[in-house]
Amino acid sequence: MPTIIDLTSADVRFPTSRDLDGSDAMNADPDYSAAYVTLETDGEHHGASLVFTIGRGNDVVVAALEALRTHVVGLTIGGLDDVNELSRALIGDSQLRWLGPEKGVMHMAIGGVVDAAWDLLARQANKPLWLLIGELTPEELVSCIDFRYLTDAITPEGALALLTERAAGKEERIADLRGRGFPAYTTTPGWLGYSDDKLVRLSKEAVEQGFDMIKLKVGNDLGDDVRRLELARNAVGPHIRISVDANQRWDVADAIEWMTALAPFNPYWIEEPTSPDDVLGHAAIRAGLGHHGIKVATGEHCQNRVIAKQLMAAGAVDVFQLDATRMGGVNELLAVLLLAARYNIPVCPHAGGVGLCEMVQHLAMADLVAFAGTTQDRYLEFVDHLHEHFTEPVRITDGAYAAPSRSGSGAEMLASSIADHEFPHGIVWAEENEENTH
Amino acid sequence: MPTIIDLTSADVRFPTSRDLDGSDAMNADPDYSAAYVTLETDGEHHGASLVFTIGRGNDVVVAALEALRTHVVGLTIGGLDDVNELSRALIGDSQLRWLGPEKGVMHMAIGGVVDAAWDLLARQANKPLWLLIGELTPEELVSCIDFRYLTDAITPEGALALLTERAAGKEERIADLRGRGFPAYTTTPGWLGYSDDKLVRLSKEAVEQGFDMIKLKVGNDLGDDVRRLELARNAVGPHIRISVDANQRWDVADAIEWMTALAPFNPYWIEEPTSPDDVLGHAAIRAGLGHHGIKVATGEHCQNRVIAKQLMAAGAVDVFQLDATRMGGVNELLAVLLLAARYNIPVCPHAGGVGLCEMVQHLAMADLVAFAGTTQDRYLEFVDHLHEHFTEPVRITDGAYAAPSRSGSGAEMLASSIADHEFPHGIVWAEENEENTH
Repeated sequence: MPTIIDLTSADVRFPTSRDLDGSDAMNADPDYSAAYVTLETDGEHHGASLVFTIGRGNDVVVAALEALRTHVVGLTIGGLDDVNELSRALIGDSQLRWLGPEKGVMHMAIGGVVDAAWDLLARQANKPLWLLIGELTPEELVSCIDFRYLTDAITPEGALALLTERAAGKEERIADLRGRGFPAYTTTPGWLGYSDDKLVRLSKEAVEQGFDMIKLKVGNDLGDDVRRLELARNAVGPHIRISVDANQRWDVADAIEWMTALAPFNPYWIEEPTSPDDVLGHAAIRAGLGHHGIKVATGEHCQNRVIAKQLMAAGAVDVFQLDATRMGGVNELLAVLLLAARYNIPVCPHAGGVGLCEMVQHLAMADLVAFAGTTQDRYLEFVDHLHEHFTEPVRITDGAYAAPSRSGSGAEMLASSIADHEFPHGIVWAEENEENTH
Repeated sequence: MPTIIDLTSADVRFPTSRDLDGSDAMNADPDYSAAYVTLETDGEHHGASLVFTIGRGNDVVVAALEALRTHVVGLTIGGLDDVNELSRALIGDSQLRWLGPEKGVMHMAIGGVVDAAWDLLARQANKPLWLLIGELTPEELVSCIDFRYLTDAITPEGALALLTERAAGKEERIADLRGRGFPAYTTTPGWLGYSDDKLVRLSKEAVEQGFDMIKLKVGNDLGDDVRRLELARNAVGPHIRISVDANQRWDVADAIEWMTALAPFNPYWIEEPTSPDDVLGHAAIRAGLGHHGIKVATGEHCQNRVIAKQLMAAGAVDVFQLDATRMGGVNELLAVLLLAARYNIPVCPHAGGVGLCEMVQHLAMADLVAFAGTTQDRYLEFVDHLHEHFTEPVRITDGAYAAPSRSGSGAEMLASSIADHEFPHGIVWAEENEENTH
């Protein structure tokens, strides 16, 4: 059985702030970044993963990854039980737990290491991660999940019953995924930094490319948002869904007032209207907007399964937006998929950034196969940036993600991309530093 | 006006796990630690503060402090507005914010730097921090607080009205604090690692020392807890309050069942019954225990003002346990004191660890002077450990904290203590490492 002999990390950053790609109401100048981690073994395979950040602070996540080296070197990863044990040991370490608990930098770094172990497991099994998870038995899936703090929502016994029921039809869903892929929506047209012309052009292109939902950033200026949403609605027509995303910009009353003003253009969902921690705030916003038919979505900054549980149990969200690298890794994300199945909340993952599309597609597909059992009202976000840096870039056809076929979790970057973008000494940043000193 | 010319940090750890001081149901072997930070200036004074951790991972907080150096070097700190601006700039930095938002390692490190700036401000004013805050006008207090995500609970206008009303009697409360101090309770008797004899002896000593509340750790074994609580109740008699602390050990149903079994011994509050993130879980536990007259307390792991708001607004807690170094610094703690005043929730701060007593006493006293206006049902936790490492150790007389008189925030450690305990090369750890290699 392969033993972990080293953990390596890299501070990889892309200078996306130069072009205002990724600009929104709260994030004016992101440099999309990856705190990259690999688990080296004495066997044939290694495991790789990353934690996505937007620039400054990526070094702090790297420091947290480095602090985990002594926890993992010497462990053997021969099967699912080993990965589950690794997840429990890291998340349960009382001294590390103090730094959250189960949230923020330390939790994200633990998630990175856990995900690298899942990547290793999938490579050993010679399967893409979505298929590895999708083919787990209900008992195995339950064994992955830490039910601490969840039993008021669902118990292991309840989970087993639910997953056993949902296991029917798995083979058909796997075949369907391989044939038609997983429905996507695109955020490419809607960044705040883009001109009206670019917004209209990209919105029309999105429809031509087969997407039936696009998303626009909002929240800086109501007049601008009314104009932009009207332009987009006119560009795509009445039958394409348009969602909007405020990136946590508002307080509760602001959110209701602002979205009421946008209601005439029939937005499908309002994403991140307020603080991702504010369960009761989201419930109030949802209550305030329900009569307009506007759904409430959040999740990309959801710190852990405890907040996810409350958002769903309190009726605070219509849509949950799973993020691949915010929580404590695949095990905790499976807990969230289970909760979503329990509460019948569609999971529409957050993606974009760098590597999030490559990674989270595996979770969305595993959700379809083993948890949700349907793509009804499910979408996977798509942003057309930075895919060329991965060994298996996402493939989009007719508005859908094609099912990945290579083994692993999708997180592996090209060695050349890592080397060129290492901060601050990679060639991309060395040039930037040189320019700044002129 | 003094300008910040450097930020320095130190990884300071105390080998407390050797004696099982601080052992509880979730934290078996803590090494109480401080990620220590100073802001050096070109003026007469410097500012010092710390982030408390329990060992491993203290280095990650130090890395986060180091990442903040470039954000603060060059800033001038001449008055309250400068500290408020520093707080807003660090917490609002979009790239750092991504690492939370407003939670975990990055938020705690930002809190450390903000608190060092408050320490500097108090030294410049030649006042202890509690008095500096206590004497701020209602307008100045409102200026310290970031109302983002709070306006559904309280607006700046509402805060100004409340604080203006509470300002009456400030001078008498300041005089009273200087004369009688602030009521304390003690956790010294109740660590899980202690023998029954030690528990009984320390409980009796606590009463003799003038405390009218003690606290016991619970949650490992119900039989043990029943026996220990009965022993403690017999030792202190019926009129001394006994609170219990589960350190997040339970799910909702467990908490209600376990505490129902302990109800015959009349516990005053159950502290941290479940995940600190579970607002609705605490509300369910409080509903389940109310008829036993057992209060629900939490807060030491409360990540930010948004969770604090929900705990109070949802009726999830009877008592809020403010921690000095978990949130984003004094500014955010003032927001929490304001919320507690708004919802009439007594603030009974968490202390112990290393430096928490020295620091949080300033917040409790500022709460009395400017926010709560009363000590009714207010207590400050006291644990008799590690005070000798601070330039102004806490003083306890007749079960009360004496008001600090030195200028600053109380966080400054002795240079010799820092040097001896720096991890891993200070003399205390060099010896330990030598022992381990024998």
